[in-house]
Amino acid sequence: MSTTTDQQTAPAATSARPLAPHPDRLLPPDPGVRDLARSIYSSVAGAPIYSPHGHVDAAIIAENTPFGNPAELLITPDHYVTRVLHAQGIGLDQLGVKNPDADPREIWRIFCSHWHVFAGTVVRYWFENELHDVFGITVTPSAETADQIYDQLSEQLASKDFRPRELFDRFNIAVLATTDDPAADLSSHQKLAADPSFTGAVLPTFRADRYMFPDVLAWKGYLDELGQAADIDTGSYAGLIDALKARRAYFKAHGATATDSGMPDAYAEPLEPAEAERLHRAGIAGTITAEESAAYRRNLLYQLAAMSAEDGLVMQLHADVVRNYDDYSFATFGPDTGHDLPGPATFTKGLRRVLNDFGRSETFRLALFTTDETAFSEQIAPLAGFYPSVYVGAPWWFIDTPGAISRFRAAATDSAGFTKTSGFIDDTRAYCSIPARHDMSRRVDASFLANLVATHQLAEDEAHEIAAGLVGSIPINTFRLQQYAR
Amino acid sequence: MSTTTDQQTAPAATSARPLAPHPDRLLPPDPGVRDLARSIYSSVAGAPIYSPHGHVDAAIIAENTPFGNPAELLITPDHYVTRVLHAQGIGLDQLGVKNPDADPREIWRIFCSHWHVFAGTVVRYWFENELHDVFGITVTPSAETADQIYDQLSEQLASKDFRPRELFDRFNIAVLATTDDPAADLSSHQKLAADPSFTGAVLPTFRADRYMFPDVLAWKGYLDELGQAADIDTGSYAGLIDALKARRAYFKAHGATATDSGMPDAYAEPLEPAEAERLHRAGIAGTITAEESAAYRRNLLYQLAAMSAEDGLVMQLHADVVRNYDDYSFATFGPDTGHDLPGPATFTKGLRRVLNDFGRSETFRLALFTTDETAFSEQIAPLAGFYPSVYVGAPWWFIDTPGAISRFRAAATDSAGFTKTSGFIDDTRAYCSIPARHDMSRRVDASFLANLVATHQLAEDEAHEIAAGLVGSIPINTFRLQQYAR
Amino acid sequence: MSTTTDQQTAPAATSARPLAPHPDRLLPPDPGVRDLARSIYSSVAGAPIYSPHGHVDAAIIAENTPFGNPAELLITPDHYVTRVLHAQGIGLDQLGVKNPDADPREIWRIFCSHWHVFAGTVVRYWFENELHDVFGITVTPSAETADQIYDQLSEQLASKDFRPRELFDRFNIAVLATTDDPAADLSSHQKLAADPSFTGAVLPTFRADRYMFPDVLAWKGYLDELGQAADIDTGSYAGLIDALKARRAYFKAHGATATDSGMPDAYAEPLEPAEAERLHRAGIAGTITAEESAAYRRNLLYQLAAMSAEDGLVMQLHADVVRNYDDYSFATFGPDTGHDLPGPATFTKGLRRVLNDFGRSETFRLALFTTDETAFSEQIAPLAGFYPSVYVGAPWWFIDTPGAISRFRAAATDSAGFTKTSGFIDDTRAYCSIPARHDMSRRVDASFLANLVATHQLAEDEAHEIAAGLVGSIPINTFRLQQYAR
Repeated sequence: MSTTTDQQTAPAATSARPLAPHPDRLLPPDPGVRDLARSIYSSVAGAPIYSPHGHVDAAIIAENTPFGNPAELLITPDHYVTRVLHAQGIGLDQLGVKNPDADPREIWRIFCSHWHVFAGTVVRYWFENELHDVFGITVTPSAETADQIYDQLSEQLASKDFRPRELFDRFNIAVLATTDDPAADLSSHQKLAADPSFTGAVLPTFRADRYMFPDVLAWKGYLDELGQAADIDTGSYAGLIDALKARRAYFKAHGATATDSGMPDAYAEPLEPAEAERLHRAGIAGTITAEESAAYRRNLLYQLAAMSAEDGLVMQLHADVVRNYDDYSFATFGPDTGHDLPGPATFTKGLRRVLNDFGRSETFRLALFTTDETAFSEQIAPLAGFYPSVYVGAPWWFIDTPGAISRFRAAATDSAGFTKTSGFIDDTRAYCSIPARHDMSRRVDASFLANLVATHQLAEDEAHEIAAGLVGSIPINTFRLQQYAR
Repeated sequence: MSTTTDQQTAPAATSARPLAPHPDRLLPPDPGVRDLARSIYSSVAGAPIYSPHGHVDAAIIAENTPFGNPAELLITPDHYVTRVLHAQGIGLDQLGVKNPDADPREIWRIFCSHWHVFAGTVVRYWFENELHDVFGITVTPSAETADQIYDQLSEQLASKDFRPRELFDRFNIAVLATTDDPAADLSSHQKLAADPSFTGAVLPTFRADRYMFPDVLAWKGYLDELGQAADIDTGSYAGLIDALKARRAYFKAHGATATDSGMPDAYAEPLEPAEAERLHRAGIAGTITAEESAAYRRNLLYQLAAMSAEDGLVMQLHADVVRNYDDYSFATFGPDTGHDLPGPATFTKGLRRVLNDFGRSETFRLALFTTDETAFSEQIAPLAGFYPSVYVGAPWWFIDTPGAISRFRAAATDSAGFTKTSGFIDDTRAYCSIPARHDMSRRVDASFLANLVATHQLAEDEAHEIAAGLVGSIPINTFRLQQYAR
Repeated sequence: MSTTTDQQTAPAATSARPLAPHPDRLLPPDPGVRDLARSIYSSVAGAPIYSPHGHVDAAIIAENTPFGNPAELLITPDHYVTRVLHAQGIGLDQLGVKNPDADPREIWRIFCSHWHVFAGTVVRYWFENELHDVFGITVTPSAETADQIYDQLSEQLASKDFRPRELFDRFNIAVLATTDDPAADLSSHQKLAADPSFTGAVLPTFRADRYMFPDVLAWKGYLDELGQAADIDTGSYAGLIDALKARRAYFKAHGATATDSGMPDAYAEPLEPAEAERLHRAGIAGTITAEESAAYRRNLLYQLAAMSAEDGLVMQLHADVVRNYDDYSFATFGPDTGHDLPGPATFTKGLRRVLNDFGRSETFRLALFTTDETAFSEQIAPLAGFYPSVYVGAPWWFIDTPGAISRFRAAATDSAGFTKTSGFIDDTRAYCSIPARHDMSRRVDASFLANLVATHQLAEDEAHEIAAGLVGSIPINTFRLQQYAR
């Protein structure tokens, strides 16, 4: 697919439309409610950022590596962006995905000349803020302004002020959690922790997904890597369990307060050890069936919950996404290239055994993330509204948008209030968009609270307290970040 | 679970924050729309209350028993309240559930000191109104004000003005329907009906749920109780059917206009009598399987519909809730203690046979209640928008909140208009919250109507007529309460 | 069912309430946002109508046949209307359905005297606009005004100005697509295309549904008709495929740019030709099972997608509706009489193979229509946000209402922006309601855009551009109507 299809023509060029995000953006239009929202928002706008889940690489902060060119930083790796362009008929190769020969300036031009197709999307919202607030861009992207913006960005990215650590400080990040394989040595995290000049916290998160799919060809190789990291033979199921426990302890010793699991469904059901052992060996032998593999995975998810109830690492569960829907795109460009899709939530049914066994435990904590909006009022908030261990994860991925976050608050608050929600999670690999994302959340929450005040469901001073909690005590409590609190 | 977990700290004490529900609470913030809503609301604010479904015990009204202490009245039996506190790590035993040794004042203190966790929830909204309007409390609950409020409540509860019958009059209740087992003698209902000094109507509702689960150990005992009440041998399926019919007639003779069924799903499918008989005997023998038990239940639900088409008792169906999700809590504290959960709605699929057979009958009437918000636009309103017998039940349980009721109106009106909705149902065992709940509904409906007027979809005088219908002719018609109309 | 049941009494007659749709109807009440919405709306209010999917009969335009009486035109054939009246206990026979003896004036009286039950529904909204703007009616329907309105309508319908072609011009319709069986000779479309005095475009749409259900008794007869039309023996599966291809070419030669499929689910899965052939013969032999029939249908849906990828006809898929839910009504009154019901959307699961094979094709284009609101954010918009071939169809049927369209925009825009949505589809057999329906959509979209401007997510000039696109370039592009663009 090398050319665009017959998409509608871009609107006539309106060159150099100014880029100036409005101070009241996302706040409610009604003047009275807007005043309330403005007051609530302004009280938390400058609060430090707790980012308890995301996909930034710790090494770039540890090494303080200068970022590459604008396309390499902002377009190619961001599947939020590339999928929208792909939907317009642009091949992922043209955007540099698995294609080092693509000209970054040309990628940037494609992006800018398609600026209008992002209208109304949260991707555009974030970009506007990021370009303006982080990079000082003052013209709207377009075919005409693409080169000018590219040059300005390139110049800045080459400067010291725009290196990862300098931005970390400027972004006022208190905690940034990364996502890491259990076999990872966490050397970048160690380096940062040992560096007295670095005052933020970059914490690893234990994500054992790749050990949970024994019908994947590469599984045996993963087991070997983990076995080496843990110095435990993972050729048996018992060995894998021991290795995972050992690595959890290692992660905890290196600052981790949480784990993550990204699963096709939320089912977590224990197997008898002998049966798990049998499946493990079938996986190694390459004879495991799809059903057996699913049973193996669901048992491991249960075991991870049991481990969390033991060691107190907060368990995050991102469930019910159909991964790698498009075979061609997966084969050609790999995973995480924009063709994952939401699936229906399965928490209430899937987690019954886990919650019966650990849901009332004081050590266990489980934050549930979904891309299925209906799950907030039907599953997650009712679960979090009874089980002390369950927290409502912020809207995820397809629904981490102003409209959806606002609907989430309306749906979740009735059952779970504010204190059983997780606080905002940016879940991003786009480092420079972190402030824009958190700022968006603060604006939307301020608007939601302002509406409660304007309809006399909440006193104004309490709304301020809650807003402060949503960016402070609530994520700190949910993710057990007390020692990193500012 | 005896101590709270590491929940976030309560905000700094702001002692004696005043409690003064705003006259415009829940009305839209836009000044123009608010004026419209205020006008519509004020025209129905004082209308008598028709409460066609709930869980108040008729005996407390018949006997006019003084209420107990504040905790016993307002906290321990209300699973809306206890589940939120349980979610904060408070054991149900600490709240007095199945624990007569718990100190009521201490329970009340726990509640008040956790007031902030209810922020934004409908439980808090109801409590504010109930405490202020019913009991004259003027300070917000908190750790500091707990004792003061407890003492004030205790004093009032001891006074004659706060006995059930006096409150019945003060609440301006025209009809209060209770929920009763078919074996109940309805003596309290009889006593009230025979009492010329009592001018309200307290009507029984026939709820046969416990006869519908033959795989429950206690089922045989239930059959015996029913058999005695009906003086019919319920050892056979045919006998059970006869007994149910006899008791429906008894209920009808004692004022019942409706039945209720609370089911795990909405499937209602007839069995051949011989097969039903076989399952009945298997149930008695203790050999029935789970699948057979479900088939037995679904047959009985169908038979109940057939009986309603015969005797004209309005059939209420509350479906698709997962009951007693947490085994430990069920074993320790029993049912209705906060760990039921919403499930996906199954009306369109489950009721096809019932609606084909009775949906166009003039005597049959079926009100459908769900906790699955998506069902309003996808299932219930489309069914009620075709079948004369089907009515859209008001949002239930997890979704009987200002936000969800507003969304319900938006979702249901397109297909079903206003006249095919049921009117508000409070469904509560919290007697003193009845006025607050109905008032909430009137405010939300007034706001919805005001918005239709403000967007020129409805004339203002028609909005007033509809608002009056929603609290009068609509519940009266839906539940066939004509003879009790004020 | 010959009499109305005990519905609530109609409100006291308020005779001759004026009918005067407000110029600002559906626009947001907030004065600032309303000004923005008014400005956006007014810029597109008069734009020509592109109606790329509907059920108007081309013959009435080709022949310019005068419409019949008001009931025959506006009530009896419109199941949006008859279902609401049926839900009030009016028999479909009383409304003239399959009952030529029903007195049209009496039907009209029934409709007018039930005007209040339509309050808040989109049916009433459309009727108000249609009666006022098309027919100049200035009093609200009621029992008292029924005859007066009937007479006024009758007089107008007899006049030349109200014949189909005159209305076509007056409605400013640029393109009207009809829905046609592959066996249709398209003579009316031909006649119109050949008529220099007719300047609009009336395009056929290829809808092969009836060939896809081999377990329907009449299927063999349908095959024969198609075989004759195509002059190809459809006794074999291979013959059916050839005939469908031949008829697609014929439709394309007669102006078709699109096909349509109305399916019980979205599953499209190819069979081996030999297996398809076997099922075809089993269908002819009358021995095909329900499961085999479903497999046959799902294969044909896949084959239709393959043909679209070949010939470039835009594929519309209207999926997941339960047809003919009520057996009695189907047997007595036939299909399309108001008892179809929404079902849960199945796009992501059902279309995986189609999208893997054709989703990145430049010729293939697929517009997805649903009655399940949750599908916009969970399935359709995410699919359209990755696959260049997929477009988000406008809300359909039960959800083509102001509230639902507004929720659709909020749900779809995040993933798909505006350019991957289809533009408004009226999907109506009610010819005279076409302007009211499109006008409704323009108002709702203007309101949505105004809100984005008011919350500073979109510049005002860009909102104007998008509004223009939504009624022009977007439907033109989606449905490949470039040659008919005005």
